Order: sequence, then C-alpha cells, then structure tokens
Amino acid sequence: MKPIALDAMGGDHAPKVTVEGALLAQKQGIPVVLVGPTERLQRELAAQGGHLPVVEAPEHITMQDHATDVRKKRRASINVCMELLRRGEASAVVSMGHTGATLASALFNLGRIPGVDRPTLLIELPSERGRTYLADGGANVDCRPEWLVQFAAMATAYARAQGVENPSVGLLSIGEEEEKGNDLTLRAFPLLKSAAGINFYGNVEGRDIFKGTTDIVVTDGYTGNVVLKLSEGEARTLFGWIRQALAEGPWLTRLGALLVRPALQRLRERMDPAEYGAMPLLGVEGAVFIGHGSADGRAVLSALRKAEASIQAGLVERVREGIARLEEVR
Amino acid sequence: MKPIALDAMGGDHAPKVTVEGALLAQKQGIPVVLVGPTERLQRELAAQGGHLPVVEAPEHITMQDHATDVRKKRRASINVCMELLRRGEASAVVSMGHTGATLASALFNLGRIPGVDRPTLLIELPSERGRTYLADGGANVDCRPEWLVQFAAMATAYARAQGVENPSVGLLSIGEEEEKGNDLTLRAFPLLKSAAGINFYGNVEGRDIFKGTTDIVVTDGYTGNVVLKLSEGEARTLFGWIRQALAEGPWLTRLGALLVRPALQRLRERMDPAEYGAMPLLGVEGAVFIGHGSADGRAVLSALRKAEASIQAGLVERVREGIARLEEVR
Repeated sequence: MKPIALDAMGGDHAPKVTVEGALLAQKQGIPVVLVGPTERLQRELAAQGGHLPVVEAPEHITMQDHATDVRKKRRASINVCMELLRRGEASAVVSMGHTGATLASALFNLGRIPGVDRPTLLIELPSERGRTYLADGGANVDCRPEWLVQFAAMATAYARAQGVENPSVGLLSIGEEEEKGNDLTLRAFPLLKSAAGINFYGNVEGRDIFKGTTDIVVTDGYTGNVVLKLSEGEARTLFGWIRQALAEGPWLTRLGALLVRPALQRLRERMDPAEYGAMPLLGVEGAVFIGHGSADGRAVLSALRKAEASIQAGLVERVREGIARLEEVR
Repeated sequence: MKPIALDAMGGDHAPKVTVEGALLAQKQGIPVVLVGPTERLQRELAAQGGHLPVVEAPEHITMQDHATDVRKKRRASINVCMELLRRGEASAVVSMGHTGATLASALFNLGRIPGVDRPTLLIELPSERGRTYLADGGANVDCRPEWLVQFAAMATAYARAQGVENPSVGLLSIGEEEEKGNDLTLRAFPLLKSAAGINFYGNVEGRDIFKGTTDIVVTDGYTGNVVLKLSEGEARTLFGWIRQALAEGPWLTRLGALLVRPALQRLRERMDPAEYGAMPLLGVEGAVFIGHGSADGRAVLSALRKAEASIQAGLVERVREGIARLEEVR
C-alpha cells in the first residue's frame, strides 16, 4: 500500500498532534507521509523521537483563509497532498484542516468521478443500532433532488465498504408519509424510490437519526450541517448538566457520582466526534478524509485507520460502481 | 378572563388526560371550557369527580385525518374551539391534537393578523442560558426570506411577553460569517439586519441552540422540525444509554446509580417536552397553543398555564404591534 498523505499543518493543534497521530499509525503498520514545511516537521519528529517521510509544502491554509484560497496558495500542504494522491504516490489524503478548502482542493486537483454532480461529505453519528451515516454533511448547502440520489448511492457504497450489508436509506423529512416534506424532499422521494442499487426505506424524521431506523440518512448539506452541530452541541450541554447536577447534589449524590464516573466517561467517549476520526469526501477521484479541527493525536490516528480500512475495501471503486449503476438505468 | 377553550378530544390519551389537566387548571383558578362530545366528557368528568363547562362538538379530527379535513368536519372539536375564540367567548384555544389540522382550523376560522404572510409555530428548547425559542417549528416547510423576518418579529413579541428583555435573534446557518449559508439564509440575513424592532445577532449554528447564544433562533419549518425531533430523540437515546450503562456496570457502579438517580431524574424532566406544555401558533387572530400529542394531565396543565400567562401578557396585541413596526419601515 502506498502511504497516506497527511496534511501535517491541518487542524487547531498542528503539527504536534498530526505528528503524534502519524507516529501512532506507524506503530500499527499504517504507512504515512507527512506533508508540510520540512524543517518544522523534522523538528517536531525529533521532539517526539520518531522518524517518518516528509514531503515539502512551504505554505498552508489557515482557518482564516477562504476555501478558494487553495487556488492562490498552490504550494499549500493540502494541495501537495492531493497532488501526491493524483500521481499515485499516495493512496489517500487525510486532513484535520479547513473543510471547505480541502473540498475545493480535492475538486481542483482530483476532479469528480464520472456521473457525480457534487461530491458529498459523509458524517457518522452514534445510534441505538450502532451508527447512522448522514450525507450531505455540509459540502452542498442548496441541493437538487438528483444530487440526493447520488449522495444515497455514494453513502451506500461507503457503508458496504464498512461491512454493512444492504444498507437502508432514509430521506430526512418532517413525517413518514410520502407526501410530507419540503419541495426538495417531495421531488427526491420518487427518484430515490426508483433508483437502482439503493435500498430505500422512505422518509425518516429527526428522531430516527439517533434511533438508527435506517443505516443511512440523506438530506441537503445545510440541514446536514445543522444536524451535525446540533447533535454535538446537545451532547456537550447534556453531559455538562449531568456533571453539574452530580457535583452540586447532597453528599450521597456526590458519592454516587464518584462511583458512576467511569461508566459515564465511557459513554461520553462514545459520543465524542474524535472517536469517529474523519468524514470521507465521496465522489472525487481519490480517497479523501476530513477530520475535526479540534483533533488530538488519538483522533488523527482514528482518521488514518479509517482511511486505511477504506482503501483496503476499495472505496473509490465501489463509489464509481454505485454511481455507474444509477446512470445505467437513466 | 374568558375561559380557555380546550380541545378535549385532541391528543393520544384524550379525553382522559385533557379532563385531568383541565381539572388541575381549575384548581389553580384558570377557567377552562371543554369542547367535545358532551355525553362522553360528562362521563369522564363524573369518573374523575369534577365539574367543568362543556361545549358540544360531535366530531373530532383523528391523527389519521388530513389537515384539510377540518373543512369537511365542520363540527369537529378543534373548529368549535376556534369559533368560540373568534366570537370572543373564549380567550385562547389549546389543543394537544393534530398540529396541521389545528393550524388549518386557526387559519380558516380566525384568519391572519394584517401583514403576516404565514403564521409560525414557536418551539421552546432548554439551553445553557435558560431556553431558546425556535421559529418556525414546522408550519411552513419552504420559506421566503421575508417570512423569516416576520417569524423573528413574532418570536420577539412572544419572548417579550414571557419577560425576556430585548430578546436577541440568531439566523440558523452553517457558519457565523454573513456569507455562509444557503440561498434562503443569505437572502434573509440583510433583511433581518435592517428590520425594525429586531435585535439581530447574526448567524448562529446548530451548536448555539443548546448553548443559548441567542434567545431566539429563526429558520425554515423543515429545518425547525428536524431540529425539534432530533433534539428530543437525542436526549431520549442518551438517557437510555446512561440508564443501561449504570444498570449493567459492576456492583459499585450500580450502587452509585442508585445514589445519583434522583439528580438524573430531575435533569430528565428538564429535557422533557411535557415541561414546556405547548407551542404558540403566532400570527393568527387569536391566542392558539398546540401541545405534544403524548401529553399527560400535567402537560395539559402546563399548556393551559402557558396560554393563560400569554393572554395576561397581551400576546396577540404584541404580535400585531411587532408586525406593524416591520410594515411601517417598508
């Protein structure tokens, strides 16, 4: 396997945590190449007492930059990562950096898989049945109905690559009945129903995401992004309230709190976005994963492991086939 | 004060819980008139050992009916409630029944306040700063930018009536910056910025709803409904996982669970939609409140109390003024 190109300058705590994560991955036999300013990365490697190949990239995209700045900063680390992937010198790209810029760089350097109108960001959320895959996570705010069908096909390919058999797809709406929804969902419903290779369940509601009614939920990127940030925010608020309620209670409550702490901590980790590592960007000509900017070394490792597993499962080829199958029937 | 007309046949457990809630309200000095089939309601009143005025309505809207069926079933309890309100024989209408039908019945029987294009359902969600008011909660799936401005004005009037001083308004989007969002939010942003009588904060994200960054959040009814059902579903799933994690742990964890149970129970109640009683339907010519179909007697009481407080605070007049102020500047 060719190494995974890691944007070593992406994320809030780069390059410390990216180097940390890459060294942890190396120990597990996952080959990684660091992309960024060589001198700085060598210094960080030396500080952490590790050795990894480095590819030079003198610039990088900051969180203050616009997504389109990837066209100006041609030697930015994310662009150099994509070039390695395009030339076949890397098997995947992982970045914990600017989501919009990573998306723009992937489109610009790799291009789309034939038949894909818009690539999609796929989110993973914990659910009562394991996990729910949600597309689109924010790459495409205003969508056409046929894009939702493509998101469904690409998410199906991804879920299969993750070992889910015949993954079911729900259309996020405001009622179960076919006639409930907004203009977009009403037009997408019949297309999803008749699409080849998609195990369409019908409409699902907000509550079905955590319940795990379907393996996959499709929606536009505006709603998907609201769902992602609301669910993270709600979990954070709830755990904060629990901590407070237990700390402020009478002494018996505080004693109880001490005893239940490990169990609650494990649960909290289950809700932690870092556990999920990274979201795949599906529909571009290459395996690209985007992680949380707040990632620590463990989250970078998760992202690299997720990328590796996806490459082994032939993700890009599966997406290509899923999209081709939609096209055949048209 | 004229009595509040309660749709005694609305909700999953009617008329038992509606009669229960009405009797509880009566004890607190809130006048209520029950609307429904007289004989059945008298039987329920007798069973519960109470006395309340009843207005006859031979039919009712079931959850299987369509919203538009309010035009066919003219003597349905919800229509009779609205007639009482229109004729000034009731001060407000409360229903735990079919949301769409209640909305349709209100529009049909009461009409809109001048200047209101679309009435809005206002949701209350718990937040770190108390509560967040969210409009629209699902009355208008596809929205025009100017409707969002009206929702903001009506929600502002409601929040003021609830005692919030100079309530701040956030526009639900996918980034803080003005240029982030979908077609609807990009067009609504400048309108909200220049609208009279609205304390506009700017864009907020999904995470800000539970954080309580602004008092009010405006969005289209599709997204609002997804937010409502996702937040309810996530809380239910999380508390379920907590219960399970504590019950399945080693004996020290189970002992701790026993000790923290009361504190967690109180927190759970704080998240319970029943605590919030009912959502106001703003923008129609009268005070209308719609509660959760799964309401118990306590939730019916909360809804009636909320309606009473709103009437005392001159809700409809405040909404009328807020909308008129928008119009003046146009």
